[in-house]
Amino acid sequence: MAEGSDDIQALIALMGRLPGLGPRSARRIVLHLIRKRQGQMAQLSALLDSVASNSRECLTCGNITDRDDCAICTDPARATGEICVVQDVADLWALERGHAFKGRYHVLGGTLSALDEIGPEDLGIPSLIDRIARDRISEVILALNATVDGQTTAHYIADALEGTGVTVTGLAQGVPIGGELDYLDDGTITAALRARRRL
Amino acid sequence: MAEGSDDIQALIALMGRLPGLGPRSARRIVLHLIRKRQGQMAQLSALLDSVASNSRECLTCGNITDRDDCAICTDPARATGEICVVQDVADLWALERGHAFKGRYHVLGGTLSALDEIGPEDLGIPSLIDRIARDRISEVILALNATVDGQTTAHYIADALEGTGVTVTGLAQGVPIGGELDYLDDGTITAALRARRRL
Ligand SMILES: [Zn+2]
Ligand SMILES: [Zn+2]
Repeated sequence: MAEGSDDIQALIALMGRLPGLGPRSARRIVLHLIRKRQGQMAQLSALLDSVASNSRECLTCGNITDRDDCAICTDPARATGEICVVQDVADLWALERGHAFKGRYHVLGGTLSALDEIGPEDLGIPSLIDRIARDRISEVILALNATVDGQTTAHYIADALEGTGVTVTGLAQGVPIGGELDYLDDGTITAALRARRRL
Repeated sequence: MAEGSDDIQALIALMGRLPGLGPRSARRIVLHLIRKRQGQMAQLSALLDSVASNSRECLTCGNITDRDDCAICTDPARATGEICVVQDVADLWALERGHAFKGRYHVLGGTLSALDEIGPEDLGIPSLIDRIARDRISEVILALNATVDGQTTAHYIADALEGTGVTVTGLAQGVPIGGELDYLDDGTITAALRARRRL
């Protein structure tokens, strides 16, 4: 056993499976934390425990929150009649960092995919359509990835909303072909939102 | 507040200060963990808590352990009369992964540095010299980084052991100039150990 104790080895193995990490980076992080075991390591354990216990999906939009409804859905200033539809919570966070959008969100949790057998009901598209009917929504902004599946999903939602009187727009300028929103810098995503076009 | 809750923001900030991580990679890891909050996240919190509570430095060699003396210091098969002196626990782990060394270790916890005012007593060099006198050590292998401070430290220890009858060797072939042990592949470190030379 090279690494101190069974728990240390288990910790390195678990850390090494996190996105972007591997065995080498996990070992460096774990050693660093052991050196700071009274401070940073104990704090990290407590925060992980708290976030694991208290996080849930917002019942309205699917954002991650520690309440039934997230801070955005319960903020009266954000009842602008605009809903921005995103694939993933990471995309919602990226848009919020841009501070350009003042409405509310709907998190699909993925895209339509024939290959993976993901249909509209798996993505909460019916709940989006209910929400639009219920909440006097004037504009739906489809902020989906510029991938084939993302654009297929955008077209599906645009078609489903035809005849409802809701304006459907999509991010325009700035999203590179094949690009994923979460990797864009905040300025690009803000420009793309400002230059959104009607679909 | 873009990221869900105060705890989520604090968690991202804490993760982003770990070695090799930044705000973007920390956000990805935290979102990944929130998706697996019943499993991986709870497990990670528990392991961090256990390792933080139970880890300490081996009283003999300075390795990280969950007992007073580490598994290497208490393994009778490793009483070979050889002590391998390393700068850091990461280097001990790297040597153990190579499976080439069957003796025991002494972890200095740094190198001598006039600039940073780190002297022999800050590095447990007196305790190394005591240990060598006490434990019938025949060979001390100085497996220190091939940096100026690492080599200054090696020469200091070699000088301090002159006249004790102990053979002092250093890693030879394979350690690139300016290289740090922890970044080498396991094969290189093993070759360097096998080809060690008398100083
Ligand atoms: Zn919400
Ligand atoms: Zn030990």
